[in-house]
Amino acid sequence: MARKLFELTGKNPEWRFSPFVWRSRLALYHKGLDFEGIAWNFTDKAAIEQSGQGKVPVLVDGDQWISDSWNIACHLDQTYPDQPRLIPQGSIALMHAFNQMVDAHIHALFRPLVVMEIYDALDAQDQAYFRQTREPMLGKTLEAYAGDKDQNRELLWKGLSPFEPTLKNNSFFGGDHPNYADHIMMGAFMWAKCTSDYALLPSDHPFFSWRERMLDQYGAKARTAAGFVIKPL
Amino acid sequence: MARKLFELTGKNPEWRFSPFVWRSRLALYHKGLDFEGIAWNFTDKAAIEQSGQGKVPVLVDGDQWISDSWNIACHLDQTYPDQPRLIPQGSIALMHAFNQMVDAHIHALFRPLVVMEIYDALDAQDQAYFRQTREPMLGKTLEAYAGDKDQNRELLWKGLSPFEPTLKNNSFFGGDHPNYADHIMMGAFMWAKCTSDYALLPSDHPFFSWRERMLDQYGAKARTAAGFVIKPL
Repeated sequence: MARKLFELTGKNPEWRFSPFVWRSRLALYHKGLDFEGIAWNFTDKAAIEQSGQGKVPVLVDGDQWISDSWNIACHLDQTYPDQPRLIPQGSIALMHAFNQMVDAHIHALFRPLVVMEIYDALDAQDQAYFRQTREPMLGKTLEAYAGDKDQNRELLWKGLSPFEPTLKNNSFFGGDHPNYADHIMMGAFMWAKCTSDYALLPSDHPFFSWRERMLDQYGAKARTAAGFVIKPL
Repeated sequence: MARKLFELTGKNPEWRFSPFVWRSRLALYHKGLDFEGIAWNFTDKAAIEQSGQGKVPVLVDGDQWISDSWNIACHLDQTYPDQPRLIPQGSIALMHAFNQMVDAHIHALFRPLVVMEIYDALDAQDQAYFRQTREPMLGKTLEAYAGDKDQNRELLWKGLSPFEPTLKNNSFFGGDHPNYADHIMMGAFMWAKCTSDYALLPSDHPFFSWRERMLDQYGAKARTAAGFVIKPL
């Protein structure tokens, strides 16, 4: 049975923008596992009903339905132990803590930079769903939440700054080679790359060169995915 | 030559409250390495001049002077590879990112909860130094920064919440056993335990039971160190 990954999309079915889906895509590339990416809309709950919940990524691997990017990463390491590991042995809890930290602190900084671009690129039914579900979570309209892009970029820089020394001393969060920590962080940068050409970083920023290295990984599939071209600030 | 760790203290020379010093203490316990803790005041720059900088922890290991808790952890794993590892092989960059995240996001939440207690426990010369150096950094008086304890505790809970699932599924950030990730996080909790008996957590909080497990490690030396007794909220 073919391996399938359900992936958020919009009006253009080639467009795959979700940061959590990108974690799973990069993980699958890293493991060298073929898969078919299935375009999925927010409101198409029926298509992923067998996963027992209503969000993507959902991986269908043989007869197993696995939801949640973290569970997918653990599943891949457990099921394919002979392929390159995503999470180093003895660092599963630490990787989970990093996963949680990026969700809480890094995604919050990217979200205002992408929210209106995502809204504009969704189909009409998903637009209504997106506004209805997100505005109560955000406590304001999407437009108010988006705010001022340049100001949001400065906040992003501040939020990335604690990790600059890490990337000055290491090629990847995985060390000499990327691992799932890089996929976690790169998901957020792919979220941005898929949604606009707004330049996030100057070329001398440690995250700029790290992102370039990540875009070149795995046959440069992230670089050529439907989205925008990275430009330095 | 005896191994020595320079440690921040106050009026009571038994009192060792620095979260960064605690990272190094716990790391030395973990490695099973004896050391003499040397009481050190903020203003006693001469005593650690050989480290080439003015902050503790400073470890003197034979003829090597090592400053900065991160450098000390790396030194200990490199110099004593046959003792239990602090940082799993292949996870040095990830551990560094975790280190940076705790500095940026977790210490910021503990700091207002301990700042006045620390000030009150310093000797007169260090009190002046502490106020002079900290107030410009904080952009307000120590008293204003301390603010309302109960409000600060709520912010702490919110900041810890992303990591609750990690500790629900794992005994330690190191997995089944503590490693340097636990020392990093525990440093912040020891900062609080050393400075006041203000109850931070209810007994059913995942961080409460994790802290209990950490206090029991290494011959319960952290539990019996000069400071206060932990009480559940």
